[in-house]
Amino acid sequence: MAFDTDRKYWGWGVSSVTFPPDRLKLMNQFLGARFGKPGAAPVPVPSLDELKMPDPVLGIPVEFAHIVSDGRFDRATHTYGKAFRDIVRALTGDFTAAPDLVAYPKTEDDVVALLAWAQRERVAVIPFGGGSSVAGGIEPPRNGREQFGGVISLDLCELDQVLEIDTESRCARVQGGTYGPALEKQLRPHGYTLRHFPQSFEFSTVGGWIATRAGGHYATLYTHIDDFVESLRVVTPSGILQTRRLPGNGAGPQEERVLIGSEGILGIITEAWLRLQDIPLCRAGCSILFESFIDGVAACRELAQSGLFPGNARLIEREETLFMGAGDGRHHLLVLGFESPSFPQEDKLHAATEICARHNGRAKEVSVRNRDVDHSSETTADQWKQAFMRAPYMRDEVVRMGYVIETFETCTTWANFPALDKAVRHAARHAMRRQCGDGMITCRFTHLYPDGPAPYYTVIAPGKPGLQLQQWDAIKEAVSLALVEAGATITHHHSVGKDHRPYYLSQNDPLSLTMLKAARHAVDPTGIMNPGTLLPD
Amino acid sequence: MAFDTDRKYWGWGVSSVTFPPDRLKLMNQFLGARFGKPGAAPVPVPSLDELKMPDPVLGIPVEFAHIVSDGRFDRATHTYGKAFRDIVRALTGDFTAAPDLVAYPKTEDDVVALLAWAQRERVAVIPFGGGSSVAGGIEPPRNGREQFGGVISLDLCELDQVLEIDTESRCARVQGGTYGPALEKQLRPHGYTLRHFPQSFEFSTVGGWIATRAGGHYATLYTHIDDFVESLRVVTPSGILQTRRLPGNGAGPQEERVLIGSEGILGIITEAWLRLQDIPLCRAGCSILFESFIDGVAACRELAQSGLFPGNARLIEREETLFMGAGDGRHHLLVLGFESPSFPQEDKLHAATEICARHNGRAKEVSVRNRDVDHSSETTADQWKQAFMRAPYMRDEVVRMGYVIETFETCTTWANFPALDKAVRHAARHAMRRQCGDGMITCRFTHLYPDGPAPYYTVIAPGKPGLQLQQWDAIKEAVSLALVEAGATITHHHSVGKDHRPYYLSQNDPLSLTMLKAARHAVDPTGIMNPGTLLPD
Repeated sequence: MAFDTDRKYWGWGVSSVTFPPDRLKLMNQFLGARFGKPGAAPVPVPSLDELKMPDPVLGIPVEFAHIVSDGRFDRATHTYGKAFRDIVRALTGDFTAAPDLVAYPKTEDDVVALLAWAQRERVAVIPFGGGSSVAGGIEPPRNGREQFGGVISLDLCELDQVLEIDTESRCARVQGGTYGPALEKQLRPHGYTLRHFPQSFEFSTVGGWIATRAGGHYATLYTHIDDFVESLRVVTPSGILQTRRLPGNGAGPQEERVLIGSEGILGIITEAWLRLQDIPLCRAGCSILFESFIDGVAACRELAQSGLFPGNARLIEREETLFMGAGDGRHHLLVLGFESPSFPQEDKLHAATEICARHNGRAKEVSVRNRDVDHSSETTADQWKQAFMRAPYMRDEVVRMGYVIETFETCTTWANFPALDKAVRHAARHAMRRQCGDGMITCRFTHLYPDGPAPYYTVIAPGKPGLQLQQWDAIKEAVSLALVEAGATITHHHSVGKDHRPYYLSQNDPLSLTMLKAARHAVDPTGIMNPGTLLPD
Repeated sequence: MAFDTDRKYWGWGVSSVTFPPDRLKLMNQFLGARFGKPGAAPVPVPSLDELKMPDPVLGIPVEFAHIVSDGRFDRATHTYGKAFRDIVRALTGDFTAAPDLVAYPKTEDDVVALLAWAQRERVAVIPFGGGSSVAGGIEPPRNGREQFGGVISLDLCELDQVLEIDTESRCARVQGGTYGPALEKQLRPHGYTLRHFPQSFEFSTVGGWIATRAGGHYATLYTHIDDFVESLRVVTPSGILQTRRLPGNGAGPQEERVLIGSEGILGIITEAWLRLQDIPLCRAGCSILFESFIDGVAACRELAQSGLFPGNARLIEREETLFMGAGDGRHHLLVLGFESPSFPQEDKLHAATEICARHNGRAKEVSVRNRDVDHSSETTADQWKQAFMRAPYMRDEVVRMGYVIETFETCTTWANFPALDKAVRHAARHAMRRQCGDGMITCRFTHLYPDGPAPYYTVIAPGKPGLQLQQWDAIKEAVSLALVEAGATITHHHSVGKDHRPYYLSQNDPLSLTMLKAARHAVDPTGIMNPGTLLPD
């Protein structure tokens, strides 16, 4: 039973990593100046012993003694995801929602046996990958003890191997519990990468990515996990579902697509064949500065429709560049980059900067690195890690200082973006003012599609320790309703979980949901799989 | 009621187009030489009056008198698709399977009303787009008169408009019954194209493409209709299902993907928002000659994994180049091409020819046409039409001469291709020899994926008029079983229909099928929608 004992039960990542105090101080100064008052003194982190956690209602079944735990640390680390409201609740020591047991199956047979037991005993099963859900996706259902005989969190972390590599077809058979770094580490000696780097990369798994339709770090083309899945193997309460390895298939609706994004309600992803890529060795990139955000948006639209397919194309609003330490706060910033395993990308970069210039974007810091320069030891994953790995750690500390901080990520058409943007900012500002007296909202684009951007809003307000949760709830609801009303999706890549469920249910077509419910009932007739996530119980 | 009166009821296209006699003569000579005996004299085409067609068991409902026909021509043109066995059966005059009625709804309300009536009267409904199915997808079910109160073919041809264009997001709202040429004609004045050109382009519709997961003409990247669908509107027996316009979405399994490929068993696609592209003005292409097919395959694999994304990359086996009039039959041919709306493609072509050279491929006939050269009046559709439009007309004539002719299209991984190729050729040759004494099989690649090719086999054997159907059945079964056994898909883009159904059912995961059946039952509880297609009745 091998859950990393260094993992924080109250927030992101591991205890041994602390966010650099000097950068935290800068952040605090920035927010203090922005809101005209400093953050509160950080609330203390409750010790494991202090957590309020009921005794389990389930005993450990004898046959699973070697793979099931009822220990406090295991239960605490499997209670919450990593959303703002998870951190706040954890910091109050409220772990009443803890699962009764945590299972660490060592084999797929273990998974099958656990599901059979759970179905027999009517125990709710929460599939657990890296636990990085920010939408309540791995939280036990509130009615777990009334509606079910108990709740077990089923953690796939022992199933963490790349089992097979097909170099001819450039694919790998990977176990569902494989974390991002472990995956890349096993692929690298073969010269491959999955090139899928969500911000949760370090603490999320292949199975979790697939179950939640994770979005990668890259802006265009192959970045979503959906496109990397060649075939799937899923343990359902009704047996094992295995799709075939087919690069393309036109026989009926695509089988994998019903499973991708099913958030554990159909079964547990134990294996996937994934499409790999060669490690990129040729890169060309630059920063583009815009005086006007609208110009930046127009440039992004033209880039997205150009067929150039930049790997990186993150438009970051002026105030956010400052906040993220990525600029001087005087210009909106477009981080632009191209990469390829083999072909120099200067021409593409040149064409892209010309597009930006037509929209008053000024290129700076052009950087070109081709294969003849030795960068073989540096991978995109490493680069990404350096820049982003510590951001969620900072978030945890900001929460401890009483701030309300949240991100809203969505997607809409280019035509609808201005109206959406206006509605979201209005709703957020109004709610923050009402709840917290003040607040800031900034926008970036995380992904660009030919038909629209994926805007990502960061909201920070000076919350009140003790009131943060209800403040958050009100802001979250206001912005979520604005998203729904403006016709944008409630989630572009953070998943639905329990937190987004009401909006998901109100957005998706009722007949479509009826079909999903019917499909679910067909493989999970007793409804034990991740109840309350995605669909109502 | 506007079904084109020029349409052939026994084969492909329109009666007013005849395949050029001189080319047909050449074809006949080639096949005669190949098989050591000439083809038979073409069997006569039965007149409409000669067709054996039972009286309809359904009267025209009074409320639908203006949109429903029981005329012989309407029923005859809606009896069969365009597969080999359809042509053979039609030429014998056997139209016992004809639908009782044919409806031509003028509005979506008509579609809703027709489905309500059909559900009430338990009438089987066959959604009909362009009628180009080569898999029995639009043929009335054999037990239509026993299991149902009759059969109605619901032809969408009156719903043929581009209703709206969102130039900002580069999308169009298009009615399901819009034929390929009508779509492109309505888009062209705006500078757009869907750039989706299946070989059936001229006689297939937007709704049909989506229902059958049509594959476009292009080899890589955006070519399949799946990727062009932004949202869908579908009339089901339980009401209208409408998905939202979202460029990207991570909320639950992608709604559209359950409908795309559903082949009419869930409902009728009345509208879709489709992602458009700018008309390509920059092109670079060439032919590559290979002495060895294996070298050509290796080059294709490297191209597919290179990230260059050629628009065209058709590898055509030596004998097929001769047969198609595309070469001298001494070399295997790779037709290679790149295109873009704005950016010259010479560099990409150069990189691609270098890859081919490494696999002993010799480039010739390099052609580069950029926007500065005036080719604005020539579109890809036009080019495509000139090359491919008449091929199915020839097929009809070859069938009349007694040949057995069929194509098998599939997809598999690069690693599995050699074994698959061997198995298919063996099965085809063995079955052809047994059934027809002789036969030829050739291969091309229609699409290239990073993880595998989509091989397309053409099979021609000297059949016996009168015995063609049973000869075909035996060959079809032998090759289909070989595909299944070798782990390739039974169809990459021709759909499942009724002809591929047993293989589809044996290939797809049983739990996956159970979910599809449950989803179907949820929206079509009485099972009236295209019964017998995809799923068993």
